Amino acid sequence: MKKAVCILSGGMDSTLASFIAKSQGYEIITLHFNYGQRTESKELKAFRDITKELKAIKKVEFDIDLAQIGGSALVDENLDVPTTGLSSGVPITYVPFRNGIFLSIATALAEREGAEAIFIGVVEEDSSGYPDCTDEFISKFESSLNQGTAIEQKIEIKTPLVHLKKEQIVKEAIKLNVPLNLTWSCYQLEDKACGVCDSCRLRLKGFEVANEVDKIPYKD
Amino acid sequence: MKKAVCILSGGMDSTLASFIAKSQGYEIITLHFNYGQRTESKELKAFRDITKELKAIKKVEFDIDLAQIGGSALVDENLDVPTTGLSSGVPITYVPFRNGIFLSIATALAEREGAEAIFIGVVEEDSSGYPDCTDEFISKFESSLNQGTAIEQKIEIKTPLVHLKKEQIVKEAIKLNVPLNLTWSCYQLEDKACGVCDSCRLRLKGFEVANEVDKIPYKD
Repeated sequence: MKKAVCILSGGMDSTLASFIAKSQGYEIITLHFNYGQRTESKELKAFRDITKELKAIKKVEFDIDLAQIGGSALVDENLDVPTTGLSSGVPITYVPFRNGIFLSIATALAEREGAEAIFIGVVEEDSSGYPDCTDEFISKFESSLNQGTAIEQKIEIKTPLVHLKKEQIVKEAIKLNVPLNLTWSCYQLEDKACGVCDSCRLRLKGFEVANEVDKIPYKD
Repeated sequence: MKKAVCILSGGMDSTLASFIAKSQGYEIITLHFNYGQRTESKELKAFRDITKELKAIKKVEFDIDLAQIGGSALVDENLDVPTTGLSSGVPITYVPFRNGIFLSIATALAEREGAEAIFIGVVEEDSSGYPDCTDEFISKFESSLNQGTAIEQKIEIKTPLVHLKKEQIVKEAIKLNVPLNLTWSCYQLEDKACGVCDSCRLRLKGFEVANEVDKIPYKD
């Protein structure tokens, strides 16, 4: 049976991407990164819960402390997470080349496990301007990884969400019976979602436009 | 002044690559990976000694445990390092996509520090068949990284040793006054080099063909 490595943060996008892989008949290997993000324990719980729902054949929780590089509000305790709404340009929450790092590690795992696909839930339009969330980047990276691995088998990077809007993601997830109540998106808090960081705003807007109710707890 | 991130293991190749960067007028940021290799403490000492000699403006010792992926004698205590000489094909010491992972992290650091070049000491001919040591891989990876970073400034990946033979590396290093006595290549031991692993064999052959003496201590 064909296998896929699914990069799974525990948010809505990567969760839907993983369920899409499942629906396409892949055996699932889930890969989570503990990279020093503020909301790690909440994300990790979401990852484990969703891995179970996916009936994954293997899970890897990969520790990599990106604060060793620095430069982002998601990993740097001294910077504030913006809560005043989306603005243009590359946001302060940007971790330089994060998806490049994650995809490199996913590639190593895919080669090791004989997987023929890597699923990543990047979303170009709603990605707040992260340059490593674009189709062009993924396509060039895929070309480099197939040059740099030792195996005959090609590895494909699948980005089933790349051209979707957040409301389409919500609708698609509901169609596939994805347990969105288990997912976590907030950049800021651990107990209840803050509702005001970029990630919460995108999520809430997605549910609103899709005319659906988000069942995770939000701060009053 | 222009800056370069130099990936520096502490071996001969990466050390020469870093000194070439220095000779080309770059300010040097050295980047070392503690990835769970057997001979880490010896490599780390070499890295620190060489960083001093380079008068680097910054050094990063990046911890990333590649045993979380597995699949290589360099990180897996249960596999033996081959000592019977070079054979064809991808060797057991291969860490899947290791240079891809290292270059991704170097890219993040280069973006963060405003460096315009990454130096890596890959050697195509003497690389024991590692697919991520080839020109083709590096060139495709460079193209993907410039698509995936947020900055206007292009980042170049420089591989000044890629087409050199080991004896040319020895000669070039001596010409540039590189302190080869501070470098460490052995895959196996920590006190004295074993002289029989692939890495020692390549190194010793390089010195022999170049008619030079290797001043590091070898096991009798």
